[in-house]
Amino acid sequence: MDKLAIGVDIGGTNTVFGFVNKEGEILYQNSIKTQTHEKVEDFIKELVSEIDKEKAKFEKEYEIIGMGVGAPNSNFYTGTIEDAANLRWKGKIEFTKIFSRHYKFPMFLTNDANAAAIGEMVFGGAKGMKNFIVVTLGTGLGSGIVVNGELLYGHDGFAGELGHVVVKTKGRKCGCGRKGCLETYVSATGVVRTVYELLASSNVASDLRDIPFNKLDAKSVFEAASLGDEIAIETFKLTGKKLGIALADVIAITSPEAIFLFGGLARAGKILFNQVNSYMEKSVMNTFKNKVTILPSGITDNAAVLGAAAMAWKETEK
Amino acid sequence: MDKLAIGVDIGGTNTVFGFVNKEGEILYQNSIKTQTHEKVEDFIKELVSEIDKEKAKFEKEYEIIGMGVGAPNSNFYTGTIEDAANLRWKGKIEFTKIFSRHYKFPMFLTNDANAAAIGEMVFGGAKGMKNFIVVTLGTGLGSGIVVNGELLYGHDGFAGELGHVVVKTKGRKCGCGRKGCLETYVSATGVVRTVYELLASSNVASDLRDIPFNKLDAKSVFEAASLGDEIAIETFKLTGKKLGIALADVIAITSPEAIFLFGGLARAGKILFNQVNSYMEKSVMNTFKNKVTILPSGITDNAAVLGAAAMAWKETEK
Repeated sequence: MDKLAIGVDIGGTNTVFGFVNKEGEILYQNSIKTQTHEKVEDFIKELVSEIDKEKAKFEKEYEIIGMGVGAPNSNFYTGTIEDAANLRWKGKIEFTKIFSRHYKFPMFLTNDANAAAIGEMVFGGAKGMKNFIVVTLGTGLGSGIVVNGELLYGHDGFAGELGHVVVKTKGRKCGCGRKGCLETYVSATGVVRTVYELLASSNVASDLRDIPFNKLDAKSVFEAASLGDEIAIETFKLTGKKLGIALADVIAITSPEAIFLFGGLARAGKILFNQVNSYMEKSVMNTFKNKVTILPSGITDNAAVLGAAAMAWKETEK
Repeated sequence: MDKLAIGVDIGGTNTVFGFVNKEGEILYQNSIKTQTHEKVEDFIKELVSEIDKEKAKFEKEYEIIGMGVGAPNSNFYTGTIEDAANLRWKGKIEFTKIFSRHYKFPMFLTNDANAAAIGEMVFGGAKGMKNFIVVTLGTGLGSGIVVNGELLYGHDGFAGELGHVVVKTKGRKCGCGRKGCLETYVSATGVVRTVYELLASSNVASDLRDIPFNKLDAKSVFEAASLGDEIAIETFKLTGKKLGIALADVIAITSPEAIFLFGGLARAGKILFNQVNSYMEKSVMNTFKNKVTILPSGITDNAAVLGAAAMAWKETEK
């Protein structure tokens, strides 16, 4: 009997689930709204009922080996989601415990960046790699670090907070309450902040001057850059520089084979990658020069569901 | 038949070897000079002949399970020592390959800081810990990082270069050719540099003003601090502060249970530890507050030989 894993990605707006085979093909995918239920139990009930409709069909031909769930602020060790800013359920949610009441197969929970790293390892560009990092560039900056072929979870399950390495003393105020964290510079919101700093400090003409702060997003900065807008180009250069320099320190600590850039901002392509690579090489100590490759993610579509399913494949094979 | 491991520590001056049982007791220990031979083959021959004298006696009662070697700039994966500044043999030395000609038991090579971390895990304060860091504070600053119960070697075997994380842009010139590396501030030589900066910038009376730069060492600064010398006390405070802030970033990446401070500088005790702990807690993101313990090494004597032997115990048990 062929096998399938279920991958679930819980986002602030939608929760997507899919049935994924070992080759990383999604045989079925659907979604529900994440935040309609006040109680997490009710959310899980709705999700289970949706999954079960398809599961019944698939089980005629396939064995379901397990389920992987990617969710913000979640802890692989405890199966809990803890105070996720983008979810309405506060405190420590015993997520896998509640979910497991409905299913007998094994269930694994991790945060989005770790799921992306496992997806990269099982289905993407990191196949066969034992030491690599996936940097997710979205609203914030997350990272999944793989060491000796295993996710680096650390003692409490929360390792890999690369976005909260401090790159500038007394720098930009961060959502975490501190100042100068990497994600205040290198993320979709970081890019917008950099644009505004440049618009303030220079007097170069720029189409970006016509967009109000709250409407400006990384995509419009990227579009402006493609049209040759100086401010937009300089923004991506500064963003890449900050990331390249920060990666040099991470390399000194973890010595990865490759670093994958994943997520919206990574679509900026060459303008960002060249800069990251150039500053990473300039900044890194001699021991690590010309050893680490900066790569785009090898997974283009449905990365979150694939990453979650990949975790079920990887963990059940142990 | 009881079992023994051989531990070898290759230092710039002496090479110490010992026969170590599973409880971490050294049954015999001796040393030879490291740098009398021009060729590494001749050095190994002398070392083997010294080891063999005792080995013959021990083998009547014990089985030798393997040998662990700690040496500067050495690579666990390849068994090579590469361009070690303090050794006369240059280039890439095929160390375990040459050594293995003499012995049938398995042989393992790693750098001093990694050996210290394995020693801590097998015989010291990190027994039972799966995620911790040992920071070695000597002439420079090294680190051995343990993740999921295994040494973090990274792709090329050179991970854990915590001493070369850049803590100050355009900071102090480092032996690695770059500027502002952590070890230029936090190490025996870093302490001396800080003393001189403080002597230059302040006009406080201090006994340290009577010692020439080349004679000043961390020990005399520590002695001055114990006698209440303001410059010496301020030096340790600044050193601890720099380390505490740097550790906050390492914690965000690796989330260890504990961080052990090891080596000469760690003997400064409370004055250093309190400061490291206080700045680490102040600087770390909320997720990690009050979770990570800063501890002195649990191994007081013969740490290098014990660490090397511990590696043989750990690796042969796999």
